[in-house]
Amino acid sequence: MQSLDKFEIISELARRRGFFWPASEIYGGISGFIVFGPLGSVLKRRIEDKLRDRFIRRLGFFEIESPVIMLGKVFEASGHVNNFREPMVTCKGCKRNFRADHLLQEFARMSSTETEKLSLQELMDQIDKKGIQCPECGGTFYNPQQFLTMFSTTLGPYSEEIGYGRPEAAQGIFVEFKRLYECVRGRLPFAVAQIGHALRNEISPRQGPIRLREFTIMDLELFFDPEEPHCSMLKEVEKEVLRLIPAEIRLRGEEKPIMVTADEALNKGYIKTEWQAFFMALSKRFLVELGIPEDKQRFIEKLDWEKAHYSAQGFDQEIYLERWGWVEISGHNYRTNYDLKCHMEASGIDLRVFKRAKTKEKSGRFFPHVVEPSFGSDRLVYATLEYAHKTKEGRTLLSLPRDVAPIQLNIFPLVSKEGLPEKAKQLHQKLINEGFMVEYDESGSIGRRYARADEVGIPLGITIDYQTLEDDTVTLRDRDTWRQVRNKIEKLSELLHVYFDYKIEFKDLGHPIEK
Amino acid sequence: MQSLDKFEIISELARRRGFFWPASEIYGGISGFIVFGPLGSVLKRRIEDKLRDRFIRRLGFFEIESPVIMLGKVFEASGHVNNFREPMVTCKGCKRNFRADHLLQEFARMSSTETEKLSLQELMDQIDKKGIQCPECGGTFYNPQQFLTMFSTTLGPYSEEIGYGRPEAAQGIFVEFKRLYECVRGRLPFAVAQIGHALRNEISPRQGPIRLREFTIMDLELFFDPEEPHCSMLKEVEKEVLRLIPAEIRLRGEEKPIMVTADEALNKGYIKTEWQAFFMALSKRFLVELGIPEDKQRFIEKLDWEKAHYSAQGFDQEIYLERWGWVEISGHNYRTNYDLKCHMEASGIDLRVFKRAKTKEKSGRFFPHVVEPSFGSDRLVYATLEYAHKTKEGRTLLSLPRDVAPIQLNIFPLVSKEGLPEKAKQLHQKLINEGFMVEYDESGSIGRRYARADEVGIPLGITIDYQTLEDDTVTLRDRDTWRQVRNKIEKLSELLHVYFDYKIEFKDLGHPIEK
Repeated sequence: MQSLDKFEIISELARRRGFFWPASEIYGGISGFIVFGPLGSVLKRRIEDKLRDRFIRRLGFFEIESPVIMLGKVFEASGHVNNFREPMVTCKGCKRNFRADHLLQEFARMSSTETEKLSLQELMDQIDKKGIQCPECGGTFYNPQQFLTMFSTTLGPYSEEIGYGRPEAAQGIFVEFKRLYECVRGRLPFAVAQIGHALRNEISPRQGPIRLREFTIMDLELFFDPEEPHCSMLKEVEKEVLRLIPAEIRLRGEEKPIMVTADEALNKGYIKTEWQAFFMALSKRFLVELGIPEDKQRFIEKLDWEKAHYSAQGFDQEIYLERWGWVEISGHNYRTNYDLKCHMEASGIDLRVFKRAKTKEKSGRFFPHVVEPSFGSDRLVYATLEYAHKTKEGRTLLSLPRDVAPIQLNIFPLVSKEGLPEKAKQLHQKLINEGFMVEYDESGSIGRRYARADEVGIPLGITIDYQTLEDDTVTLRDRDTWRQVRNKIEKLSELLHVYFDYKIEFKDLGHPIEK
Repeated sequence: MQSLDKFEIISELARRRGFFWPASEIYGGISGFIVFGPLGSVLKRRIEDKLRDRFIRRLGFFEIESPVIMLGKVFEASGHVNNFREPMVTCKGCKRNFRADHLLQEFARMSSTETEKLSLQELMDQIDKKGIQCPECGGTFYNPQQFLTMFSTTLGPYSEEIGYGRPEAAQGIFVEFKRLYECVRGRLPFAVAQIGHALRNEISPRQGPIRLREFTIMDLELFFDPEEPHCSMLKEVEKEVLRLIPAEIRLRGEEKPIMVTADEALNKGYIKTEWQAFFMALSKRFLVELGIPEDKQRFIEKLDWEKAHYSAQGFDQEIYLERWGWVEISGHNYRTNYDLKCHMEASGIDLRVFKRAKTKEKSGRFFPHVVEPSFGSDRLVYATLEYAHKTKEGRTLLSLPRDVAPIQLNIFPLVSKEGLPEKAKQLHQKLINEGFMVEYDESGSIGRRYARADEVGIPLGITIDYQTLEDDTVTLRDRDTWRQVRNKIEKLSELLHVYFDYKIEFKDLGHPIEK
């Protein structure tokens, strides 16, 4: 039997242990929709909460929550109705539809760079030239057409209004700019983020959590005065090294990244705005914290014909995944005043802000500019799992960062008799009351229970044994090294809190036990 | 000018200070969609996280996250396509549509109890009898019709599948039951919750966050063996007093609640299952923690003709709101095996579980039964705001529980000169690094800054004054009493953490300052 690739291994583990799986399987499912199970939903939320902490709370920025269904007018104004379309081919045989560019990427090893600049006719020519057939039935294709990838519905009892499922959370921020600017009492710069579900009616999503029709997006919109583009927080990350592939290099047909610090990238003009560089450096740091090493990350600048319709400069932060190679994990776009301008024209409401300058002539109203980092939670979850997945002595180890692991602690009575379960359950309850995510497990041999815990990435196992009944000490086991230390129960909760905050290491949790 | 009622006061404050407001106002908005702003989104999330903590984490239950858009088949099987309809009347004049029952409730002071048992014809008769006219143009109405209140869309490039926006999160759990049961390694009882957006195409929502077309629901499905209906956690809440209005009392035309403890309600047969009683008691306790007093809460049993199509016994937990009187804040339904049975019949997949009994004859497969508590986040946010809203000496005070207040701390330099701002900013950064939600405010007189903080419910203000520069002490100000204490900066972070966990009181934060 052929061996599974990493994606299959992760997907199998995810299904079996409850991280994620295809939605509504009992009804045959429908591609592009997945469910995050008991472990996956918590992992996903903890990653999102970490994103919140790093990109919003610590920076003094703001968050909103607006509806997934929005008025058609919003997306007509934003340009999505005209631009949010993908090239689609239909199989003459089975009549199934496919993304023309994805077929070329998957079966002709073309890069998205190459495919994205192709016209519909050129896409068709390439498909013929490369002899690509329908992956389902081997048939050939009709000519490609552009397909609007937003879900539409009608609002109200009269279907009087068209509504679309938002393809991005950003528009929910732009249309509320006026009130948001009041909320911050009229100062720039400020940023507003939104983390929520978004919908894209993808033509043929077949990549699990990597390409979904319903997914969770985190869009952050930083509004600044184009005449005062300085980012005061830049210094905190300016020495962060970025693996950058600027457009000029790509135009030479090269793909080798250059290594530059954030401030070098600015000084050399690779990145146009300080805020853009700031968020790129922050994003790199964030992914490192999720376990994705620096050399598996890169920032690739979008070429003119690849850029989103609203973007003056765009970088994709890509990470390396075993099955697909380099995959976008976040997008960094300089949206300028594009969106506010569109919505002002369409709504007739003045979305400019007033600036009082020294001279009366210089005073006046202007559009703030926008820099946007944008993440997809679902890909973050998958990437975190793929990089956490290790094998040790033939056993699976999910080496999740301990600040996002869905279960923090596992309580094991060494055997399920002679008062050990009772003692273990007391500790279990105590740690729950302290606010930890704790699981109790007494079924099967201690070895099997350790293995089960390692496979779902529980950082620490706490074992209650006979000695516990005598001196109230327990052993703590490290998931990654399988080392053990021993300590008093009363000492635990304080130590554990700082441990999960990464302020101390495993060895600091107690006295080492030599096996 | 007439005085505003509480709803108007809260809505005005919510708009002005960024808790919530109507979505997409620059495009005229559309009723039933709101935005939670910088303060509201955090308040909402903290309330949801508290709900998670009380109903999921502490009880060892589970959570999933599944899509908002689901296959049509799911809601055909669940009975929603047939039953999720509301009586609608159309104005002959302006052609606007209205909920027939809501018109009677609003303009004829009929209770939902009364309206819900009326047929379409009876609704029309009542509208005529009471002489109710179109609230918009004064016109009369055409005969009522049943209107399907789910949003529909089509999935895939071919529109090959019908999809609906889920009107409840529960179905996302039922269709995944098979995998979820595997995740918990085949044991009962267990519960799975989901907190997420849901959609209902309401006919004429005109009540802000109380009746929305897109809202956030928290559905928890507790699966148990009907032959072993015992709830082992009941004892923790069995002495909780419930203000109950059982069906038998309502059938006598009375509305006065009886006061019974959870276990009495079970013994007297008012509540059919222990799990139902457990969640009702837990919900009452939860609302008290959000600041809604016991005597503003009640549980009203649904009469046969009021119950949801899947419910064998249903209670609405109602709270008193100034404008609308008693309003549902959570629903508690005994769904029996209704949903699993429907989905097994429609999908052909066996959703029963196997039980090995002592005798081979008694062994076999059976459907778990389901008890469901269900909350709406948006109403929880509004109710929390309404009950937190107080006035003191003519000033507005938002007395939010300190474990859900969106901003925990406000840092004030007494004056913005002579090194006080620098000192204050140091402390601001220090407390951010400690994980607190902190805001810095140096604009305007200290009195105005205190007032601003009180109005958005920031529990503590920390003032840096000249003495701070000498002895590194600061004053802490209590939002609700305006009392002040003084303490060393180095002492703060530890004290503050336990304070926000409700483990100590304000007076314990330092030495009292007498004004």
